[in-house]
Amino acid sequence: MKNGDVPEAAVGRISLYLRHLEQLRREGRQRTSSGRIARRLHLSDAQVRRDLAYFGHFGRPGLGYEVDGLIDALRGVLGTDKSWAVIVVGVGDLGRALLRYRGFQRRSFRIVAAFDVAPGKIGRRVGGVRVHALEDLERVVTEQEVHLAILTVPAAAANDVAGRLVDAGAEGILNFSPTTLQVAERAAVKPVDVGASLEQLAFQVARKQTAR
Amino acid sequence: MKNGDVPEAAVGRISLYLRHLEQLRREGRQRTSSGRIARRLHLSDAQVRRDLAYFGHFGRPGLGYEVDGLIDALRGVLGTDKSWAVIVVGVGDLGRALLRYRGFQRRSFRIVAAFDVAPGKIGRRVGGVRVHALEDLERVVTEQEVHLAILTVPAAAANDVAGRLVDAGAEGILNFSPTTLQVAERAAVKPVDVGASLEQLAFQVARKQTAR
Repeated sequence: MKNGDVPEAAVGRISLYLRHLEQLRREGRQRTSSGRIARRLHLSDAQVRRDLAYFGHFGRPGLGYEVDGLIDALRGVLGTDKSWAVIVVGVGDLGRALLRYRGFQRRSFRIVAAFDVAPGKIGRRVGGVRVHALEDLERVVTEQEVHLAILTVPAAAANDVAGRLVDAGAEGILNFSPTTLQVAERAAVKPVDVGASLEQLAFQVARKQTAR
Repeated sequence: MKNGDVPEAAVGRISLYLRHLEQLRREGRQRTSSGRIARRLHLSDAQVRRDLAYFGHFGRPGLGYEVDGLIDALRGVLGTDKSWAVIVVGVGDLGRALLRYRGFQRRSFRIVAAFDVAPGKIGRRVGGVRVHALEDLERVVTEQEVHLAILTVPAAAANDVAGRLVDAGAEGILNFSPTTLQVAERAAVKPVDVGASLEQLAFQVARKQTAR
Protein backbone atom coordinates (compact mmCIF):
# COMPACT_ATOMS: atom_id res chain seq x y z
CA MET A 1 0.00 0.00 0.00
CA LYS A 2 1.42 3.37 -1.00
CA ASN A 3 -0.62 5.98 0.83
CA GLY A 4 1.82 8.82 0.37
CA ASP A 5 0.23 10.59 -2.56
CA VAL A 6 -3.44 9.74 -2.23
CA PRO A 7 -5.59 12.84 -2.84
CA GLU A 8 -7.81 13.81 0.10
CA ALA A 9 -10.85 13.66 -2.19
CA ALA A 10 -10.11 10.00 -2.97
CA VAL A 11 -10.00 9.18 0.75
CA GLY A 12 -13.36 10.94 1.13
CA ARG A 13 -14.80 8.81 -1.66
CA ILE A 14 -13.52 5.64 0.05
CA SER A 15 -15.89 6.54 2.93
CA LEU A 16 -18.67 6.98 0.38
CA TYR A 17 -17.97 3.58 -1.21
CA LEU A 18 -17.95 2.00 2.22
CA ARG A 19 -21.40 3.44 3.07
CA HIS A 20 -22.74 2.17 -0.22
CA LEU A 21 -21.23 -1.31 0.22
CA GLU A 22 -22.66 -1.57 3.75
CA GLN A 23 -26.06 -0.70 2.28
CA LEU A 24 -25.64 -3.46 -0.35
CA ARG A 25 -24.74 -5.93 2.40
CA ARG A 26 -27.87 -4.99 4.36
CA GLU A 27 -29.86 -5.68 1.18
CA GLY A 28 -28.23 -9.11 0.96
CA ARG A 29 -26.16 -8.38 -2.16
CA GLN A 30 -22.88 -10.30 -2.40
CA ARG A 31 -21.19 -8.89 -5.49
CA THR A 32 -20.97 -5.55 -7.28
CA SER A 33 -18.82 -3.85 -9.90
CA SER A 34 -17.11 -0.49 -10.33
CA GLY A 35 -19.71 0.39 -12.97
CA ARG A 36 -22.62 -0.29 -10.65
CA ILE A 37 -20.99 1.58 -7.75
CA ALA A 38 -20.33 4.50 -10.12
CA ARG A 39 -23.91 4.70 -11.40
CA ARG A 40 -25.38 4.58 -7.91
CA LEU A 41 -23.05 7.35 -6.62
CA HIS A 42 -23.13 9.53 -9.75
CA LEU A 43 -19.42 9.06 -10.47
CA SER A 44 -17.63 7.68 -13.52
CA ASP A 45 -16.56 4.05 -13.70
CA ALA A 46 -12.96 5.20 -14.29
CA GLN A 47 -13.06 7.37 -11.16
CA VAL A 48 -14.16 4.45 -8.97
CA ARG A 49 -11.51 2.14 -10.41
CA ARG A 50 -8.78 4.80 -10.06
CA ASP A 51 -9.72 5.51 -6.41
CA LEU A 52 -9.63 1.83 -5.47
CA ALA A 53 -6.38 1.28 -7.38
CA TYR A 54 -4.58 3.70 -5.01
CA PHE A 55 -4.89 1.06 -2.34
CA GLY A 56 -4.55 -2.30 -4.05
CA HIS A 57 -6.16 -4.72 -6.48
CA PHE A 58 -9.53 -5.71 -5.10
CA GLY A 59 -11.73 -6.92 -7.94
CA ARG A 60 -11.39 -9.69 -10.50
CA PRO A 61 -11.82 -8.93 -14.22
CA GLY A 62 -15.31 -9.90 -15.32
CA LEU A 63 -16.34 -10.84 -11.78
CA GLY A 64 -16.26 -7.44 -10.07
CA TYR A 65 -15.98 -7.11 -6.31
CA GLU A 66 -17.11 -9.33 -3.48
CA VAL A 67 -19.05 -6.98 -1.15
CA ASP A 68 -17.80 -8.41 2.18
CA GLY A 69 -14.20 -8.57 1.01
CA LEU A 70 -14.21 -5.01 -0.31
CA ILE A 71 -15.76 -3.70 2.93
CA ASP A 72 -12.98 -5.36 4.95
CA ALA A 73 -10.31 -4.08 2.58
CA LEU A 74 -11.57 -0.48 2.63
CA ARG A 75 -11.82 -0.54 6.43
CA GLY A 76 -8.20 -1.65 6.44
CA VAL A 77 -7.34 1.27 4.15
CA LEU A 78 -9.06 3.80 6.46
CA GLY A 79 -7.67 2.25 9.63
CA THR A 80 -11.18 1.50 10.90
CA ASP A 81 -10.63 -2.26 10.96
CA LYS A 82 -9.63 -1.59 14.58
CA SER A 83 -11.65 0.34 17.16
CA TRP A 84 -10.71 3.96 18.01
CA ALA A 85 -11.36 5.60 21.39
CA VAL A 86 -12.72 9.11 20.80
CA ILE A 87 -13.53 11.99 23.17
CA VAL A 88 -15.76 15.02 22.68
CA VAL A 89 -14.47 18.26 24.19
CA GLY A 90 -17.24 20.87 24.60
CA VAL A 91 -20.79 19.78 25.48
CA GLY A 92 -22.89 22.55 23.92
CA ASP A 93 -25.71 21.86 21.43
CA LEU A 94 -23.29 20.46 18.89
CA GLY A 95 -21.36 18.36 21.43
CA ARG A 96 -24.67 16.94 22.67
CA ALA A 97 -25.76 16.12 19.11
CA LEU A 98 -22.49 14.26 18.52
CA LEU A 99 -22.72 12.38 21.85
CA ARG A 100 -26.24 11.22 21.02
CA TYR A 101 -25.45 10.23 17.44
CA ARG A 102 -25.59 6.45 17.07
CA GLY A 103 -23.69 6.22 13.79
CA PHE A 104 -20.10 6.33 15.08
CA GLN A 105 -20.04 2.95 16.79
CA ARG A 106 -20.88 1.17 13.53
CA ARG A 107 -17.78 2.79 12.05
CA SER A 108 -15.38 1.68 14.79
CA PHE A 109 -15.42 4.93 16.76
CA ARG A 110 -16.28 4.57 20.48
CA ILE A 111 -16.91 7.85 22.29
CA VAL A 112 -15.44 7.11 25.71
CA ALA A 113 -15.69 10.49 27.46
CA ALA A 114 -16.82 14.10 27.12
CA PHE A 115 -15.43 17.26 28.70
CA ASP A 116 -16.79 20.68 29.63
CA VAL A 117 -16.04 23.55 32.00
CA ALA A 118 -19.64 24.19 33.14
CA PRO A 119 -20.13 22.83 36.70
CA GLY A 120 -23.78 22.00 35.86
CA LYS A 121 -22.67 19.60 33.12
CA ILE A 122 -19.78 17.85 34.85
CA GLY A 123 -20.65 14.40 36.21
CA ARG A 124 -23.77 14.08 34.04
CA ARG A 125 -24.19 11.61 31.18
CA VAL A 126 -25.15 12.61 27.64
CA GLY A 127 -25.96 9.85 25.16
CA GLY A 128 -24.61 7.42 27.76
CA VAL A 129 -21.24 9.18 27.91
CA ARG A 130 -19.94 10.77 31.14
CA VAL A 131 -19.05 14.49 31.09
CA HIS A 132 -15.75 15.17 32.87
CA ALA A 133 -14.18 18.39 34.12
CA LEU A 134 -11.67 19.81 31.64
CA GLU A 135 -8.97 19.39 34.32
CA ASP A 136 -9.27 15.61 33.84
CA LEU A 137 -8.44 15.81 30.11
CA GLU A 138 -4.83 14.62 30.30
CA ARG A 139 -5.60 11.81 32.75
CA VAL A 140 -8.48 10.40 30.66
CA VAL A 141 -6.60 10.68 27.35
CA THR A 142 -3.72 8.69 28.85
CA GLU A 143 -5.76 6.12 30.78
CA GLN A 144 -8.22 5.37 27.97
CA GLU A 145 -5.59 5.50 25.21
CA VAL A 146 -7.53 8.13 23.31
CA HIS A 147 -6.15 8.83 19.83
CA LEU A 148 -8.92 11.00 18.37
CA ALA A 149 -10.71 14.03 19.79
CA ILE A 150 -13.70 16.00 18.52
CA LEU A 151 -13.38 19.66 19.46
CA THR A 152 -16.53 21.79 19.81
CA VAL A 153 -15.32 24.43 22.28
CA PRO A 154 -15.59 28.19 21.60
CA ALA A 155 -12.95 29.61 19.22
CA ALA A 156 -11.17 31.46 22.04
CA ALA A 157 -10.45 28.20 23.91
CA ALA A 158 -9.77 25.96 20.92
CA ASN A 159 -6.01 26.34 20.52
CA ASP A 160 -5.33 25.94 24.23
CA VAL A 161 -7.39 22.74 24.41
CA ALA A 162 -5.88 21.41 21.17
CA GLY A 163 -2.36 21.92 22.52
CA ARG A 164 -3.24 20.07 25.72
CA LEU A 165 -4.77 17.21 23.71
CA VAL A 166 -1.67 16.77 21.56
CA ASP A 167 0.67 17.03 24.56
CA ALA A 168 -1.38 14.32 26.28
CA GLY A 169 -0.97 12.00 23.28
CA ALA A 170 -4.00 12.57 21.03
CA GLU A 171 -2.96 12.18 17.40
CA GLY A 172 -6.00 13.48 15.53
CA ILE A 173 -8.44 16.34 16.12
CA LEU A 174 -11.74 16.84 14.32
CA ASN A 175 -12.19 20.57 14.76
CA PHE A 176 -15.68 22.12 14.79
CA SER A 177 -14.44 25.27 16.55
CA PRO A 178 -14.50 28.21 14.14
CA THR A 179 -10.76 28.87 14.19
CA THR A 180 -7.62 27.51 12.54
CA LEU A 181 -5.73 25.28 14.96
CA GLN A 182 -1.96 25.54 15.29
CA VAL A 183 -0.74 22.25 16.73
CA ALA A 184 2.47 20.22 16.64
CA GLU A 185 3.28 18.64 13.27
CA ARG A 186 2.87 15.11 14.65
CA ALA A 187 -0.90 15.57 15.07
CA ALA A 188 -3.49 15.54 12.27
CA VAL A 189 -6.25 18.14 12.26
CA LYS A 190 -9.38 17.98 10.14
CA PRO A 191 -11.58 21.08 10.23
CA VAL A 192 -15.34 20.77 9.86
CA ASP A 193 -16.63 24.19 8.84
CA VAL A 194 -20.38 24.30 8.20
CA GLY A 195 -20.12 27.88 6.94
CA ALA A 196 -17.57 26.78 4.34
CA SER A 197 -19.82 23.87 3.35
CA LEU A 198 -22.66 26.37 2.77
CA GLU A 199 -20.28 28.50 0.69
CA GLN A 200 -19.41 25.50 -1.46
CA LEU A 201 -23.10 24.74 -1.90
CA ALA A 202 -23.80 28.38 -2.83
CA PHE A 203 -21.00 28.16 -5.40
CA GLN A 204 -22.57 25.04 -6.96
CA VAL A 205 -26.03 26.64 -7.00
CA ALA A 206 -24.74 29.88 -8.51
CA ARG A 207 -22.94 27.86 -11.18
CA LYS A 208 -26.12 25.92 -12.03
CA GLN A 209 -28.03 29.22 -12.24
CA THR A 210 -25.45 30.64 -14.66
CA ALA A 211 -25.53 27.48 -16.80
CA ARG A 212 -29.29 27.83 -17.41
CA MET B 1 -14.70 33.44 -15.16
CA LYS B 2 -14.65 29.79 -16.24
CA ASN B 3 -16.06 27.79 -13.36
CA GLY B 4 -16.77 24.64 -15.34
CA ASP B 5 -13.75 22.59 -14.34
CA VAL B 6 -12.80 23.91 -10.92
CA PRO B 7 -11.94 21.02 -8.56
CA GLU B 8 -14.14 20.86 -5.47
CA ALA B 9 -11.03 20.98 -3.27
CA ALA B 10 -10.06 24.34 -4.82
CA VAL B 11 -13.49 25.76 -3.99
CA GLY B 12 -13.03 24.51 -0.43
CA ARG B 13 -9.68 26.30 -0.22
CA ILE B 14 -11.30 29.53 -1.46
CA SER B 15 -13.39 29.42 1.75
CA LEU B 16 -10.19 28.89 3.69
CA TYR B 17 -8.47 31.86 2.01
CA LEU B 18 -11.53 33.99 2.71
CA ARG B 19 -11.44 33.14 6.45
CA HIS B 20 -7.74 34.00 6.56
CA LEU B 21 -8.20 37.29 4.67
CA GLU B 22 -11.05 38.33 6.99
CA GLN B 23 -8.72 37.63 9.90
CA LEU B 24 -6.02 39.84 8.30
CA ARG B 25 -8.59 42.61 7.82
CA ARG B 26 -9.58 42.42 11.49
CA GLU B 27 -5.88 42.79 12.32
CA GLY B 28 -5.74 45.92 10.14
CA ARG B 29 -3.53 44.41 7.41
CA GLN B 30 -4.09 45.86 3.93
CA ARG B 31 -1.88 43.73 1.69
CA THR B 32 -0.67 40.16 1.54
CA SER B 33 0.91 37.75 -0.96
CA SER B 34 0.38 34.18 -2.12
CA GLY B 35 3.57 33.18 -0.29
CA ARG B 36 2.38 34.61 3.02
CA ILE B 37 -1.10 33.07 2.63
CA ALA B 38 0.55 29.73 1.81
CA ARG B 39 2.85 29.77 4.85
CA ARG B 40 0.00 30.65 7.23
CA LEU B 41 -2.25 27.88 5.88
CA HIS B 42 0.45 25.22 5.41
CA LEU B 43 0.03 25.10 1.62
CA SER B 44 2.50 25.71 -1.18
CA ASP B 45 2.82 29.09 -2.84
CA ALA B 46 2.10 27.43 -6.21
CA GLN B 47 -1.10 25.87 -4.85
CA VAL B 48 -2.45 29.23 -3.68
CA ARG B 49 -1.62 30.92 -6.99
CA ARG B 50 -3.14 28.05 -8.99
CA ASP B 51 -6.38 28.08 -6.94
CA LEU B 52 -6.83 31.83 -7.37
CA ALA B 53 -5.97 31.66 -11.08
CA TYR B 54 -9.05 29.47 -11.68
CA PHE B 55 -11.15 32.55 -11.06
CA GLY B 56 -9.21 35.52 -12.44
CA HIS B 57 -6.13 37.68 -12.03
CA PHE B 58 -6.26 39.29 -8.63
CA GLY B 59 -2.75 40.24 -7.57
CA ARG B 60 -0.10 42.46 -9.10
CA PRO B 61 3.43 41.12 -9.64
CA GLY B 62 5.69 42.33 -6.83
CA LEU B 63 2.79 43.97 -4.99
CA GLY B 64 0.73 40.94 -4.00
CA TYR B 65 -2.94 41.18 -3.14
CA GLU B 66 -4.99 43.99 -1.65
CA VAL B 67 -6.87 42.33 1.26
CA ASP B 68 -10.20 44.15 0.79
CA GLY B 69 -10.20 43.67 -2.95
CA LEU B 70 -9.41 39.96 -2.72
CA ILE B 71 -12.15 39.42 -0.10
CA ASP B 72 -14.71 41.06 -2.43
CA ALA B 73 -13.47 39.07 -5.41
CA LEU B 74 -13.57 35.71 -3.58
CA ARG B 75 -17.08 36.45 -2.26
CA GLY B 76 -18.06 37.08 -5.87
CA VAL B 77 -16.54 33.73 -6.83
CA LEU B 78 -18.49 31.87 -4.15
CA GLY B 79 -21.73 33.76 -4.79
CA THR B 80 -21.75 35.14 -1.24
CA ASP B 81 -21.52 38.75 -2.38
CA LYS B 82 -25.31 38.58 -2.16
CA SER B 83 -27.37 37.37 0.79
CA TRP B 84 -28.91 33.85 0.76
CA ALA B 85 -32.10 32.89 2.61
CA VAL B 86 -31.58 29.53 4.32
CA ILE B 87 -33.92 27.22 6.23
CA VAL B 88 -33.14 24.45 8.71
CA VAL B 89 -35.37 21.36 8.47
CA GLY B 90 -35.22 19.25 11.63
CA VAL B 91 -34.82 20.87 15.05
CA GLY B 92 -33.05 18.17 17.06
CA ASP B 93 -29.74 18.76 18.88
CA LEU B 94 -27.90 19.42 15.63
CA GLY B 95 -30.64 21.66 14.19
CA ARG B 96 -30.62 23.66 17.43
CA ALA B 97 -26.82 24.00 17.30
CA LEU B 98 -27.04 25.32 13.74
CA LEU B 99 -29.88 27.74 14.59
CA ARG B 100 -27.88 29.18 17.48
CA TYR B 101 -24.61 29.44 15.57
CA ARG B 102 -23.77 33.11 14.94
CA GLY B 103 -21.22 32.55 12.17
CA PHE B 104 -23.54 32.20 9.18
CA GLN B 105 -24.77 35.80 9.04
CA ARG B 106 -21.22 37.09 8.60
CA ARG B 107 -20.96 34.87 5.53
CA SER B 108 -24.15 36.13 3.87
CA PHE B 109 -26.40 33.28 5.00
CA ARG B 110 -29.60 34.35 6.81
CA ILE B 111 -31.52 31.53 8.47
CA VAL B 112 -35.12 32.64 7.94
CA ALA B 113 -37.12 29.68 9.25
CA ALA B 114 -36.89 26.23 10.83
CA PHE B 115 -39.20 23.22 10.49
CA ASP B 116 -40.07 20.21 12.61
CA VAL B 117 -42.89 17.71 13.05
CA ALA B 118 -42.96 17.69 16.89
CA PRO B 119 -45.99 19.68 18.15
CA GLY B 120 -43.99 20.82 21.19
CA LYS B 121 -41.43 22.56 18.98
CA ILE B 122 -43.75 24.21 16.44
CA GLY B 123 -44.33 27.90 17.08
CA ARG B 124 -41.28 28.24 19.35
CA ARG B 125 -38.16 30.24 18.53
CA VAL B 126 -34.63 28.79 18.58
CA GLY B 127 -31.71 31.18 18.16
CA GLY B 128 -34.29 33.83 17.23
CA VAL B 129 -35.69 31.70 14.38
CA ARG B 130 -39.32 30.55 14.35
CA VAL B 131 -39.98 26.79 14.13
CA HIS B 132 -42.79 26.01 11.64
CA ALA B 133 -44.83 22.86 11.05
CA LEU B 134 -43.43 20.76 8.21
CA GLU B 135 -46.75 21.28 6.36
CA ASP B 136 -45.75 24.93 5.87
CA LEU B 137 -42.49 24.02 4.06
CA GLU B 138 -43.64 24.76 0.51
CA ARG B 139 -45.36 28.03 1.47
CA VAL B 140 -42.34 29.42 3.36
CA VAL B 141 -39.82 28.35 0.69
CA THR B 142 -41.88 30.18 -1.94
CA GLU B 143 -42.75 33.27 0.11
CA GLN B 144 -39.27 33.84 1.50
CA GLU B 145 -37.49 32.92 -1.74
CA VAL B 146 -35.41 30.27 -0.02
CA HIS B 147 -32.64 28.83 -2.21
CA LEU B 148 -30.68 26.81 0.34
CA ALA B 149 -31.83 24.30 2.96
CA ILE B 150 -29.97 22.53 5.75
CA LEU B 151 -31.41 19.06 6.32
CA THR B 152 -31.03 17.43 9.76
CA VAL B 153 -34.05 15.10 9.76
CA PRO B 154 -33.78 11.35 10.45
CA ALA B 155 -32.54 9.24 7.53
CA ALA B 156 -35.97 7.67 6.96
CA ALA B 157 -37.55 11.09 6.27
CA ALA B 158 -34.67 12.70 4.38
CA ASN B 159 -35.52 11.79 0.78
CA ASP B 160 -39.16 12.74 1.13
CA VAL B 161 -38.30 16.15 2.62
CA ALA B 162 -35.54 16.71 0.04
CA GLY B 163 -37.96 16.02 -2.82
CA ARG B 164 -40.47 18.48 -1.39
CA LEU B 165 -37.76 21.12 -1.00
CA VAL B 166 -36.63 20.81 -4.59
CA ASP B 167 -40.22 20.76 -5.92
CA ALA B 168 -40.87 23.96 -3.96
CA GLY B 169 -37.89 25.68 -5.58
CA ALA B 170 -34.91 25.11 -3.27
CA GLU B 171 -31.74 24.75 -5.34
CA GLY B 172 -29.21 23.55 -2.80
CA ILE B 173 -29.37 21.16 0.15
CA LEU B 174 -26.71 20.76 2.83
CA ASN B 175 -27.44 17.23 4.00
CA PHE B 176 -26.59 16.17 7.56
CA SER B 177 -29.01 13.22 7.43
CA PRO B 178 -27.08 9.95 7.30
CA THR B 179 -28.37 8.86 3.89
CA THR B 180 -27.60 9.53 0.22
CA LEU B 181 -30.20 11.89 -1.24
CA GLN B 182 -31.71 11.20 -4.65
CA VAL B 183 -33.04 14.54 -5.94
CA ALA B 184 -33.70 16.11 -9.33
CA GLU B 185 -30.59 16.99 -11.34
CA ARG B 186 -31.31 20.74 -11.14
CA ALA B 187 -30.60 20.81 -7.39
CA ALA B 188 -27.16 20.68 -5.75
CA VAL B 189 -26.61 18.48 -2.71
CA LYS B 190 -23.63 18.66 -0.40
CA PRO B 191 -23.41 15.91 2.22
CA VAL B 192 -21.86 16.62 5.62
CA ASP B 193 -20.94 13.26 7.13
CA VAL B 194 -19.18 13.50 10.48
CA GLY B 195 -18.51 9.76 10.48
CA ALA B 196 -16.73 10.08 7.14
CA SER B 197 -14.71 13.03 8.51
CA LEU B 198 -13.62 10.85 11.43
CA GLU B 199 -12.65 8.13 8.95
CA GLN B 200 -10.51 10.59 6.99
CA LEU B 201 -8.88 11.72 10.22
CA ALA B 202 -8.23 8.08 11.23
CA PHE B 203 -6.63 7.52 7.82
CA GLN B 204 -4.30 10.51 8.33
CA VAL B 205 -3.38 9.37 11.85
CA ALA B 206 -2.76 5.78 10.73
CA ARG B 207 -0.54 7.11 7.93
CA LYS B 208 1.48 9.25 10.36
CA GLN B 209 1.86 6.22 12.67
CA THR B 210 3.20 4.14 9.77
CA ALA B 211 5.62 6.88 8.71
CA ARG B 212 7.28 6.91 12.14
